[in-house]
Amino acid sequence: MTHPTATSHCILTGDRPTGPLHLGHYVGSLRQRVALQQLHPQFVLIADLQGLTDNGSRPEKIASNILEVMADYLAVSIDPLRTTICLQSALPALAELTMLYMNIVTVSRVERNPTVKHEIQQKGFARSLPTGFLVYPISQAADITAFGADLVPVGDDQLPMIEQTNEIVHKMNSLMRAPVLRHCQALLSATGRLPGIDGSAKMSKSLGNTLTLSASEQEIQRAVSAMYTDPSHLRISDPGKIEGNVVFTYLDAFHHDCEKVAEMKAHYQQGGLGDRQCKNELEDCLQTLLAPIRERRQQLSADKETLLGILKQGSEKAHEHTQKTLLAVKRGLGLPVMF
Amino acid sequence: MTHPTATSHCILTGDRPTGPLHLGHYVGSLRQRVALQQLHPQFVLIADLQGLTDNGSRPEKIASNILEVMADYLAVSIDPLRTTICLQSALPALAELTMLYMNIVTVSRVERNPTVKHEIQQKGFARSLPTGFLVYPISQAADITAFGADLVPVGDDQLPMIEQTNEIVHKMNSLMRAPVLRHCQALLSATGRLPGIDGSAKMSKSLGNTLTLSASEQEIQRAVSAMYTDPSHLRISDPGKIEGNVVFTYLDAFHHDCEKVAEMKAHYQQGGLGDRQCKNELEDCLQTLLAPIRERRQQLSADKETLLGILKQGSEKAHEHTQKTLLAVKRGLGLPVMF
Repeated sequence: MTHPTATSHCILTGDRPTGPLHLGHYVGSLRQRVALQQLHPQFVLIADLQGLTDNGSRPEKIASNILEVMADYLAVSIDPLRTTICLQSALPALAELTMLYMNIVTVSRVERNPTVKHEIQQKGFARSLPTGFLVYPISQAADITAFGADLVPVGDDQLPMIEQTNEIVHKMNSLMRAPVLRHCQALLSATGRLPGIDGSAKMSKSLGNTLTLSASEQEIQRAVSAMYTDPSHLRISDPGKIEGNVVFTYLDAFHHDCEKVAEMKAHYQQGGLGDRQCKNELEDCLQTLLAPIRERRQQLSADKETLLGILKQGSEKAHEHTQKTLLAVKRGLGLPVMF
Repeated sequence: MTHPTATSHCILTGDRPTGPLHLGHYVGSLRQRVALQQLHPQFVLIADLQGLTDNGSRPEKIASNILEVMADYLAVSIDPLRTTICLQSALPALAELTMLYMNIVTVSRVERNPTVKHEIQQKGFARSLPTGFLVYPISQAADITAFGADLVPVGDDQLPMIEQTNEIVHKMNSLMRAPVLRHCQALLSATGRLPGIDGSAKMSKSLGNTLTLSASEQEIQRAVSAMYTDPSHLRISDPGKIEGNVVFTYLDAFHHDCEKVAEMKAHYQQGGLGDRQCKNELEDCLQTLLAPIRERRQQLSADKETLLGILKQGSEKAHEHTQKTLLAVKRGLGLPVMF
């Protein structure tokens, strides 16, 4: 992989290691990364520090999931020869840039960030809001800019993060003789967010409405069986609804044959196509997708040493890369660079 | 210098490089450091990152004062062979520990810190409060604990910082199998804060009521001439007041002969001792103190290379030292240590 220059694109993406990755991650980001690694230099950050911002008192939850996420990445074919997989806490430049950026962002500006506002409400923080959680948009700006990333794959709920990053880039560059930091843009996913198997918008382990990438054959079978369809579709001959029907949402997301899915939809809406048949089709499709992932994941998980070795190698490469940005920023601000 | 162990004391102190140091620093801390370096391992931190917390948009102000402060230190005989002088921005462990500690300190807790509350008011921040300024008590806790310092020379207005640091030490240690961080205590200065030459409590360059360590003979003369005494002491024969009389406060702080000062005070209170005579005594004393400091400072300032070299050497030593704490904390939390 060559280092990105001002003219070539560079991608930064990643996950908080708070649990094993699931089908929602697969559709929303992992699949895209496997495609993107063919096109551009790509860094994937296991964001353990960000994971700690709302798990400060449960470090073991974050620590124990780092290699799990690593196994997920490799199992879905993120290729460490094409994608640099690295650990956030191993990269001091990210913390050092955060410290510098915090001085040019006001508290009221981070409090106004819509994503953070929403998450604070969602997590029920109120007065117990950890300082690290409040400032995580600044830390994310440090991540993006340290890597010189100009393309950041995000969901549309994360757009305020990109906006805030570009504000920081603009302000920091204005303080230096010549601009050092690169502006970035969101790379919005073509697929929307995958709903939980119960039909709720959010797929989450705690709601029990998810399918992890390591799900067993039986778990996949049970999940598809329990999947929310059209509750008013009582007899096979009844016309059924597609909207909000999780089976069809999943068929759209996972089935390789769009035409077949279109035909099934038409048939279902007309009446005469049963839920069981649709579910069988989906189950086949998920079993086929997940069997090799599960198998690779099992092999990978058994060899922590190798996983750690790959993460170390990626982190070393990322360290070298992010240090360059840090040193350029320090020099730009006139701070002495000692070593 | 040997590294401090759990049984030996270790001191951390320092200054924000926002301008050249003055007589207030000399009395309040520099003099004490010269004495303490004979007794304990001592680290003196040039806190450029902390200086940026309220100068985020004026990095040149901080950058240009780093070597000025360095020259001040050496000029007053802080000895780099006994005291490790180091630069905050050169030590990634300080930023990395700040990131970790921010997750266990709530926003409402930092907002409640009396020192920060007072300073926010004093600096007139209100809605424009930089995030870095709000979290600087956490960053200070990172500094103190990274060095394993158990003695921290502070003024009594800084006691809440020590309290907050110990809270963080307690919480962090509770998250690890075995305690890693050391509790600290304040080392309160025997001398109170030196007033400005105009008698106001705060000595500050912007108020023009200070005397820097590099003050010329004429500047010293003018400053002592302009010094606030007892405005009701009109004739030499009148009894004069000692309280609030800056000349006597300075004689207390700088004159080597306490008995002589006590006699002068008695004479002044009784009547018969003129302000001019007292000021002559003080001027002699300040000229004698500052002449060699000014001369050394001039030589030192002319050789930036050497100053930078000493700062680099100290920072390298401090880096090695603070990295040990960072790695112990990471291991304690179960985070992988990559390199």
